This record gives sequence, C-alpha cells and structure tokens, in this order.
Amino acid sequence: MWSSLALRHCPGFHGSRRFLATVISGTKTSRLVKDRLKVEVEKISSEFSGFRPSLVVLQVGQRDDSNLYISTKLKAAAEIGIEAKHLRLPQTATQEEVLECVMSVNNDESVHGLIVQLPLDSAHFIDAEVITNAVSPEKDVDGLSCVNAGRLSRGNMNNCFIPCTPNGCMELIKQTGVSVEGKHAVVIGRSKIVGAPMHDLLLWNHATVTCCHSKTPDLPEQVSRADILVVGAGRAEMVLGDWLKEGAIVIDCGINHVPDDTKVGGKRVVGDVHYSSANQRAGFITPVPGGVGPMTVSMLMENTVRSAQRFLLKTHSWTTDTVDRC
Amino acid sequence: MWSSLALRHCPGFHGSRRFLATVISGTKTSRLVKDRLKVEVEKISSEFSGFRPSLVVLQVGQRDDSNLYISTKLKAAAEIGIEAKHLRLPQTATQEEVLECVMSVNNDESVHGLIVQLPLDSAHFIDAEVITNAVSPEKDVDGLSCVNAGRLSRGNMNNCFIPCTPNGCMELIKQTGVSVEGKHAVVIGRSKIVGAPMHDLLLWNHATVTCCHSKTPDLPEQVSRADILVVGAGRAEMVLGDWLKEGAIVIDCGINHVPDDTKVGGKRVVGDVHYSSANQRAGFITPVPGGVGPMTVSMLMENTVRSAQRFLLKTHSWTTDTVDRC
Repeated sequence: MWSSLALRHCPGFHGSRRFLATVISGTKTSRLVKDRLKVEVEKISSEFSGFRPSLVVLQVGQRDDSNLYISTKLKAAAEIGIEAKHLRLPQTATQEEVLECVMSVNNDESVHGLIVQLPLDSAHFIDAEVITNAVSPEKDVDGLSCVNAGRLSRGNMNNCFIPCTPNGCMELIKQTGVSVEGKHAVVIGRSKIVGAPMHDLLLWNHATVTCCHSKTPDLPEQVSRADILVVGAGRAEMVLGDWLKEGAIVIDCGINHVPDDTKVGGKRVVGDVHYSSANQRAGFITPVPGGVGPMTVSMLMENTVRSAQRFLLKTHSWTTDTVDRC
Repeated sequence: MWSSLALRHCPGFHGSRRFLATVISGTKTSRLVKDRLKVEVEKISSEFSGFRPSLVVLQVGQRDDSNLYISTKLKAAAEIGIEAKHLRLPQTATQEEVLECVMSVNNDESVHGLIVQLPLDSAHFIDAEVITNAVSPEKDVDGLSCVNAGRLSRGNMNNCFIPCTPNGCMELIKQTGVSVEGKHAVVIGRSKIVGAPMHDLLLWNHATVTCCHSKTPDLPEQVSRADILVVGAGRAEMVLGDWLKEGAIVIDCGINHVPDDTKVGGKRVVGDVHYSSANQRAGFITPVPGGVGPMTVSMLMENTVRSAQRFLLKTHSWTTDTVDRC
C-alpha cells in the first residue's frame, strides 16, 4: 500500500490541494513501442541479410469494422518493417476450409505470427474457439489459444504470447513509474481478451489481484481498495470517480459509443470509467480514445517481432536478451 | 455479502453467543464421492458388458512418499471399480524414455486417465513441465497440462479436467450449503496445483476472487474480507483466527509437519491455518488431517470416471447428464 508520504509525491496529490490525474497517453506510448520495434527489426534485418518478421492476418468475410481494424494492423506492420499479409476467405468459407488455411500458415516456416480476425463473418456456423486453438501456439501472437492462456495463467511468462490489450495495459502502467509488486490491483471483467489475462499479468508481476465481474455485488467497495484499477467491463462510464482510492492508477479498456447530438454522426466514444470525475481522484488515468486502444496494435507488433526472434534463436546461433522480455 | 440475519442462521453464530465452527469433514465427503462413483461405474459396467474406467499411474524411481501416495490411489481405484495400472520406470530412465512411455499410454485407447507421479526420481535431469504437457489433454486427469489450465482459467469448465485438490475444495465448500456466487473469496497461494486453479474455479463459479501470495503486504487485512478463504501457502499455521471474518468458510490445504515431543515420531501434522483460534471465528472449517487431503484422491477418481464417460460418449451412442459436471 502507498503511504501518505508516497501519495504526497504522487502526481495529482499535493498536500491538501488536489490536481487532476496525470494522463497516461496510449498514443505516445504506442509510438515509443513502435519506434523501438522498428530499430529492432532493422537490426535483425541487417544481421540476417534482409530477414523480416512476418505476420498473416486471416479474415473470413467482409465486415466493415474488421476491414478497418485490419488496415490499422497492416499500416503499423509496414511502419515497423514487419511483412504483413492479409489472407481473405469468402463468406461462403466453411469451418473445414478455415482450418485448412490455418494449418497451411502454421506449416509455412516463413511466417512468424498468425492472427484470425474475429468475429468470423461466414454464412456457415464456425466455432471460433476451434479456429483460435488451431493456430500453432508458437505463432499465436494474439495469445488467445488454450496453450498460451494456460502458460500465462500458471506464470510461465517467458514461454507464452500475452494477449495484446492486457499487454498494452501493463506497458501503460509501466509508464507511471509505479512498481506493480505488492500493490492491490482490481480488474473488472473476466473476458478472454482483457480481464482474465490482465489478472494473470498483474498476479505474476506480484500484485495482489481482485477479479470483479457482473456478479460482484459490492463493486464500489472493491474498487475503493485498488491501487491499480483495470476496467474491461464494456459498460459506458460505469466506474465513478468517487469509487476510487485517492492516487490510484486507472486503466480504462472500454470503447463505448454513446449518443451525443453535438457530434458529427450523433455519438461519441467513452470508456468504462466516468473520466471527468475519475481524473479528480486518480493519480494516473488513461483517456478514451487515445489510451489503451492504440496500444493493442503495437503489442501485436511486439509479439510478432518476439516470435521472429524466437524463430532465429531456434534456427540460427543468435542470442538476445530482448527475447526473454515476451 | 452475508447480512447479520444470514449470519445468525450460520453454524457457529447464534445471536451474541459464539459456538465453534462446523467442521467440514473431508473423510466423510470423500467417502460420499467414492460411493457415488462406485454406483456410476457399476452402471456403466452393466450397460457396456464389463467396461471399466482405466487409470495409469506412471512412476519414475522409488521415492517412499510417492510409493505411499500411489498405493492410496490404487486402493481407491480398486474400491470404486476403476482398473488402475502402476507403470514403473527405473531411476535410470531419461526424459526421452519417460516421454516414450507417456506417448504409448496416450495412444492406448483402453486407458482413460494418465497421471505422472511427481516429483520424478531420476538420475538424469527431466523437465517435469515437458512431461506433464506431453500427457494427452483428454487423459490428463490431474488437470496439470497447459491446455487444461488454459481451458479452466478462461472459463471453459465443461471441457477440461480440474486439478484434484482445488476440485476437492469446491466439493467441501458445496457441503456447507452456502452458494459461492457473489461471495468474496480469498485464495492464499498461486501454485499450479492449488492456488491458481482454485482462483479459476471460484471465479467461474461467480465469486469475486482475491489472489494473495508471498508478496502480499497486508495479508491479515485481505483475509478479513473473505466470506470464503482457501489457504494453500505451505506455511504451518500462518493464518490466525483473529484475521478471519466472522462466519467465514475456511478451507485449509496445508500439510505441514511440526515438532511435537508428545507424539510418536516426534512430530504432528498441522495445516496452514491456526485451527484452534480459527474455529472460534469461522462458520465452517476443514480439519488437518481429515479435511482437503482425502478429497484429492477422490477427485482423481472422479476425473477418471468422467474421462471414461466422455470416451463412451464419443465411441458409443451413450448420453448422460453427469458428464457435463466435470
């Protein structure tokens, strides 16, 4: 727990006078991560005669939102020097055909990362769980397969891919300079892509972690004990400022569209945290947009570069201490 | 949270007068589980002309403690009607030889469960992680492989084997008649066989769960909030009675030997909870010995029977609602 002495040195808390929380910018941090990766990729490429990390994004169908997300990923890959390939299967694709495509990429030695864009937009029923688990654990840079989830949940951190959103949250927490070890972290939500792996990451970075969810009857009380709060609940502005512990680190994974007549399109994006009240009590807070969002794509790139480095470790006499960071 | 009204109806709390906690007997519950399984096995056996669930226990070396644990497992299997086979490899066995043996059992259709007795007692270095992960997830009745850990940690409860000790703890909690949903559970310890899967089980049974461990600076405070406390810390009598919330359910997974001159052998077994003070405040408590210990073997038998039932579901036109319980 932070002592009152420590709190006095925290941004946002200066004696009896209260300032607003320090904003943790995902836009800036994401830029830093991408710049670092670009340098790493250049280094690998010069050492291994033009070798480049390679990522495949597999899409079934033509959803507009998926098209947008994929183009963001391809753009980030191009910036960093990752070779990214967009594989498209038509809406008529069956589960069997999607599996065949996954297997073929699994067996392609020149590919280091494979992600399947969800949701699958097929006219047939496809079990997304079967597809994500068919991705080779060694190429599963989204970190969504059972094997990677099992490794992360049991603390085998050096041997797994961490899902991109929680990995991005950890990167943002690091930006505060506050050590996670020994802190009380509260996670709201237990989804496979945010809440559950976030719990694991905080736990194995030695926080005491409380997992809250839709069946938690006393959410404000639980939240009030959090030195670090990560919210992935999917409910617009549900966490109010007066629930927070003074000086807490607040990481908001929510992306919700709420009606707003003053905006073009009649809506605006808000997080799961009520920002204008939360930044009166938090020590650090992520904005929405510009917080966790931009980090997700950067951490996908990070996982792809780590995967390529592991490939080089296995196939060449190459060593690097950076590989251990994943 | 329990209201004071609910507490008044709790064993151990009667108005202003305080009685001792109700003891949750693992010995009795374990007996009930084994009796139930025996009936199930008889039913399967009569429906499928003598079919019996089959378990292989693989041992490397000759450790005395392993010999004792294995004989307890074989005895329980015999009582229930499970066909159990003890495979022994000598101390000279290499990792390669152990892996070959695991693969051979994986491929043997007549075997439904395979456990590797740990620790491996070999003259060579063997990576226990590699061995436990080589066990087919469909036969991994100890629930220790990455795949089963991943399924459990992400809430795929119908499709996984749950590690035996936490599964036994859940069975003991059920005996109290108190619903887990909406309660605040605190787990002390984050080991692969107790703490980490216990967190998952409580979470996916809809408790709000706090995970504490060696880096938790305020353990008494965390424990004081627990409606349900599960301790798997491996430290003799570390949890004191006055840390507890009045009426809490206390499940003690500890087995520690402490010096005691009054006993034959000069020592006695105690748990991780200081029993004589804890039973003054808890509503329910497990004793040590006779609490969690006997449950572990029973739940191994339960997993083996479930595995055999799944095998029948796949290979025969057999249905049972009991299979879904695993």
